[in-house]
Amino acid sequence: MIDALKRASAATINIVMPYYGYARQDRKARSREPITAKLVANLIETAGATRMITLDMHAPQIQGFFDIPIDHLNAVRLLSNYFNEQGLTGEDIVVVSPDHGGVTRARKMADRLKAPIAIIDKRRPRPNVAEVMNIVGNVDGKVCILIDDIIDTAGTITLAANALRENGATRVFACCTHPVLSGPAMERIQDSPIEKLVVTNSIDLPKDKWIDKMEQLSVAALLGEAIVRVHENESVSSLFE
Amino acid sequence: MIDALKRASAATINIVMPYYGYARQDRKARSREPITAKLVANLIETAGATRMITLDMHAPQIQGFFDIPIDHLNAVRLLSNYFNEQGLTGEDIVVVSPDHGGVTRARKMADRLKAPIAIIDKRRPRPNVAEVMNIVGNVDGKVCILIDDIIDTAGTITLAANALRENGATRVFACCTHPVLSGPAMERIQDSPIEKLVVTNSIDLPKDKWIDKMEQLSVAALLGEAIVRVHENESVSSLFE
Amino acid sequence: MIDALKRASAATINIVMPYYGYARQDRKARSREPITAKLVANLIETAGATRMITLDMHAPQIQGFFDIPIDHLNAVRLLSNYFNEQGLTGEDIVVVSPDHGGVTRARKMADRLKAPIAIIDKRRPRPNVAEVMNIVGNVDGKVCILIDDIIDTAGTITLAANALRENGATRVFACCTHPVLSGPAMERIQDSPIEKLVVTNSIDLPKDKWIDKMEQLSVAALLGEAIVRVHENESVSSLFE
Amino acid sequence: MIDALKRASAATINIVMPYYGYARQDRKARSREPITAKLVANLIETAGATRMITLDMHAPQIQGFFDIPIDHLNAVRLLSNYFNEQGLTGEDIVVVSPDHGGVTRARKMADRLKAPIAIIDKRRPRPNVAEVMNIVGNVDGKVCILIDDIIDTAGTITLAANALRENGATRVFACCTHPVLSGPAMERIQDSPIEKLVVTNSIDLPKDKWIDKMEQLSVAALLGEAIVRVHENESVSSLFE
Amino acid sequence: MIDALKRASAATINIVMPYYGYARQDRKARSREPITAKLVANLIETAGATRMITLDMHAPQIQGFFDIPIDHLNAVRLLSNYFNEQGLTGEDIVVVSPDHGGVTRARKMADRLKAPIAIIDKRRPRPNVAEVMNIVGNVDGKVCILIDDIIDTAGTITLAANALRENGATRVFACCTHPVLSGPAMERIQDSPIEKLVVTNSIDLPKDKWIDKMEQLSVAALLGEAIVRVHENESVSSLFE
Amino acid sequence: MIDALKRASAATINIVMPYYGYARQDRKARSREPITAKLVANLIETAGATRMITLDMHAPQIQGFFDIPIDHLNAVRLLSNYFNEQGLTGEDIVVVSPDHGGVTRARKMADRLKAPIAIIDKRRPRPNVAEVMNIVGNVDGKVCILIDDIIDTAGTITLAANALRENGATRVFACCTHPVLSGPAMERIQDSPIEKLVVTNSIDLPKDKWIDKMEQLSVAALLGEAIVRVHENESVSSLFE
Repeated sequence: MIDALKRASAATINIVMPYYGYARQDRKARSREPITAKLVANLIETAGATRMITLDMHAPQIQGFFDIPIDHLNAVRLLSNYFNEQGLTGEDIVVVSPDHGGVTRARKMADRLKAPIAIIDKRRPRPNVAEVMNIVGNVDGKVCILIDDIIDTAGTITLAANALRENGATRVFACCTHPVLSGPAMERIQDSPIEKLVVTNSIDLPKDKWIDKMEQLSVAALLGEAIVRVHENESVSSLFE
Repeated sequence: MIDALKRASAATINIVMPYYGYARQDRKARSREPITAKLVANLIETAGATRMITLDMHAPQIQGFFDIPIDHLNAVRLLSNYFNEQGLTGEDIVVVSPDHGGVTRARKMADRLKAPIAIIDKRRPRPNVAEVMNIVGNVDGKVCILIDDIIDTAGTITLAANALRENGATRVFACCTHPVLSGPAMERIQDSPIEKLVVTNSIDLPKDKWIDKMEQLSVAALLGEAIVRVHENESVSSLFE
Repeated sequence: MIDALKRASAATINIVMPYYGYARQDRKARSREPITAKLVANLIETAGATRMITLDMHAPQIQGFFDIPIDHLNAVRLLSNYFNEQGLTGEDIVVVSPDHGGVTRARKMADRLKAPIAIIDKRRPRPNVAEVMNIVGNVDGKVCILIDDIIDTAGTITLAANALRENGATRVFACCTHPVLSGPAMERIQDSPIEKLVVTNSIDLPKDKWIDKMEQLSVAALLGEAIVRVHENESVSSLFE
Repeated sequence: MIDALKRASAATINIVMPYYGYARQDRKARSREPITAKLVANLIETAGATRMITLDMHAPQIQGFFDIPIDHLNAVRLLSNYFNEQGLTGEDIVVVSPDHGGVTRARKMADRLKAPIAIIDKRRPRPNVAEVMNIVGNVDGKVCILIDDIIDTAGTITLAANALRENGATRVFACCTHPVLSGPAMERIQDSPIEKLVVTNSIDLPKDKWIDKMEQLSVAALLGEAIVRVHENESVSSLFE
Repeated sequence: MIDALKRASAATINIVMPYYGYARQDRKARSREPITAKLVANLIETAGATRMITLDMHAPQIQGFFDIPIDHLNAVRLLSNYFNEQGLTGEDIVVVSPDHGGVTRARKMADRLKAPIAIIDKRRPRPNVAEVMNIVGNVDGKVCILIDDIIDTAGTITLAANALRENGATRVFACCTHPVLSGPAMERIQDSPIEKLVVTNSIDLPKDKWIDKMEQLSVAALLGEAIVRVHENESVSSLFE
Repeated sequence: MIDALKRASAATINIVMPYYGYARQDRKARSREPITAKLVANLIETAGATRMITLDMHAPQIQGFFDIPIDHLNAVRLLSNYFNEQGLTGEDIVVVSPDHGGVTRARKMADRLKAPIAIIDKRRPRPNVAEVMNIVGNVDGKVCILIDDIIDTAGTITLAANALRENGATRVFACCTHPVLSGPAMERIQDSPIEKLVVTNSIDLPKDKWIDKMEQLSVAALLGEAIVRVHENESVSSLFE
């Protein structure tokens, strides 16, 4: 599509890509790995895109994989508003990051909910002993909200939910921006103590990826506003927060 | 230097840059900001570098700012060994991340010390109330080791040390890979409850950036081994862990 | 894969791509179209490939879509040898191009079989009259061999086979390099007067794309020889003919 | 000229190049050859052109040698109109391609003249026997129109004309878009059975490249219309057919 | 700054750089040297600049180090006007180039002052004999004006002034566009026979780089006019002379 | 040729270009001009050259037009040796630059001949008065050697020779590296007071560009030595002086 636009003499080619695929491969975690998120950025620029609007890339540094301007919107406000409207706010709520890399995201939501945070600290206490889902922070007697950017096979999030319940959490909610929901995800979520899973429509969900405990929020207004501002040469940055 | 090598017909130009400057500006945190870490990557590639060896870039994603191969060494093993040799290991030690973005690094060191982690969770409990250095995780009666990649003006690390003491930590150590130590850093560290600050020599320290409570570990052997392996076309990746 | 090799410091990255996908979109046939074959070339070069070995690209000009060296092998010799071995050679054989763009390919095979050629000349004799499969050249009482580079839905090739029979051809064979064979292809070929369809293994054929009247020739020896020559810095060009 | 415009801060640099030189070298026909048509495309883009208008490039794939938009006009309509006006239309006319690669072009003109096609099929019947100008298709008793994109030394076209007469053609016309007409071309055409050679003014013809049996049609209106549409951001594509 | 503008979607990024640093390193004068002036040009273009306004680059060829448009203003008119207003004009004035490479610049000023020129011809008369500041041209009994583009440590210019006085010059003035004035420059100028040193404000002069015999002319109006013309798409070239 | 080598998988492509054409257009001397010497550099690099050996480019800064290594040989030593062998050395010889831009070159030769220099200072003494060939430096009673990099139409050099004779020079020699010698050059040189014109064979001279007063020196040994050193990865820089 970009090539077709370029060869038809488009003056600018703005890409709206709500879910930036391959974003999790944003560094060499092991040797001999590619950095696919950078490769995709190079391919998009080579094709001829001049600007991109996207939502919650796995790491904010992926902006720097591009030399064209990126409008990096985020859905934390949208997800937070949902829980706010449910009255889930204040010191009895704990926003929980399911891994060590997501604490900044959890803190952003916690700020909006005026809540403390906790972290699922997966660790191996001694060699030759199984990993345990340790929890850093206090969740006993609390309502927990797990937040992640992407839920794929739902292994991490459902193990985290179990650990929260075992450590005394009274209720467990989960949310993410991008519901990839592949493989065993739906079954795991159904069977987990997660009471409600809140996602956005950044990825279209077919019927078989839908269960009653899910709630889907629309990012249409957010993306639409960004498109209008780009078109009218206005500042998009207030939408980043 | 790169240009001089290029114009003198060097076959390959390998850059050894122990401290990658501007690394903290790796994303647009606010509107109208540059992504200087990407700019520097572009400039290095434009000049003609064909490979780079570096140490503990602020975020591992900065590898993807380059299209040339990057050997991203890390100094966590070196720093962990120091504390191991001091006998600071086990469940009575807590490795503490001074901010939300550094939890993965803290967990890496904690794994080597077989220790739990904690996070300094700077937050504003209510509007119009000062930020507090909240602590997520248990540090009461523990020996704490703060770990960061860069210590610049030492504001964050010394406030964190104070908070740890106020929350019952018996002793506080701190360590980082890159001792920038600018402005009021030396005075703040001197006056803080930090018992020992362990750094590497990735940045040369002039006399006036030296106080008795500091310890400097050499990354020379690590970098030297990487240079040898690059030169002999061997795998460098085992040095990444 | 290319990105992984590049970031692991490979000295050269040679791509072996027996079937170059999207090759048919090698020009703007209508306005607002992309030139996908060029886009793919740009993406492969951007990723970091330094040389490519491929087979029977839809048009030889696609070599020029690349700035890296391309070894453009062809399978006409392989396909011709098959028919030669069947004794299908000489003036009683006619090699037929199923469309106007494939006449050069038909002539190449005909030279090897010492045979004349014919062309299926699809045309609309008068406005508001259906297109007819006209035949330019003499096929009456002859054994016909249809040759194409790609057989996709098999519409063109089976209509051509019908037209040849209606014009007096005694037997009809067909061959191609790349058996895409999508959608209704298998049924159409089964029901057509094509006696034997000869293809190569440039594309892997699953079980459901296999019928008894098919013959699959291996390009493994051809590609293997090219790889050896590239590896040993020998000339590959004798394999182009 | 492009560099001068670029350095004088031109916003866009549109090249009008009626005859794209070196177009015939659009693939490696033999080993050790350049692909000069791609080289020229790279040089034009490097110099700074942002769009190009051209006419009947040897192969339509040459559009894909560029990453800038190409408006690829064609003169077949212009040439066809000339013959239509002469009443040379219908089933008694045969449009003849002088080689295997030009059949698509011959079919385009034949569609406009509601005529059948034929192909000059130069082949060597047996080893150590001279090549013969075989004809595929029926020309006996017909009026033939040879069409090519470029006539250079006129060897192919005049041998083709002879072959047509020997096979019973009553009259032979020839036409091309680009009259390069180098070396022995004028003498060959003068001495050939070609009754009329119709060319365009895509290449300026000096006095000594002019004989009475030639007719020159102007592409000025076609190019002018394309320039106007580019300038006014209108669609140029309707001029491609 | 360029990166910040680029990522904030600026349509054009025009750099105003009155003093182009590293300009003297514009060629490999000795082996193993870089061409830093080209490197800087590459870095500016890589960052994203689309046009540059600058003043008296060491060599006019540096314009060609860029592929973006350069508006290369010069301050010779400004400096000449100063001396014209002082009545220093006509055959009794000699404009002197302090080295072999600056004669063209000296002639430009001499044309404006209707004056002859001379050159300081530093040479070694015989091997193992000290270099002497020979003078080519007649300065005996004349008022001399030395002109250079950059005065850095002021060694060349003050030795030249001494040589002029020793060869009979009655008064010696000096001028340059870019007053770098590093190291011993101020002391050398103070102690030299230079009566007045005229510079522009292309480089900001701190208090300690100021002595009474200096005169600073403003390039603000010249640069301002260039900025206005670039902004209004008018021709800047009349400012080049 | 470069493209053919590149597509035939050459590992390096070294260009030997004794005369770098278009070199005189190395800056915008007037508005709306191209910088053709840079354009040619871009085209050579785009085509795929990886290194270039050349001789006496009009300005040494042209090295910086390239991002590939340039071996910039010079012929001043060769030309100087010729005059040395003729005994034309010492204080009675004056090496003369025919224009303001060539003084550095004249000084280089003068150093080798242990001679003083002079400059032809073409200037217009008053408005509406013809330009005069003024001479800066003393040539009265001296033997003069004019040196330039390129002699094209020979207007400048022959007017300079006349001016030298009118100012008392006893004999006038001329030399250059690149004998373009176009248009009226041969006649002007024949009719001028130039006693001997010494050139190199960097440009092949046809018979009609040859007169008895010319001497042609071969650069073959110099280029050959450079090629050997490049091939054997030795330093070429000692040949630059």
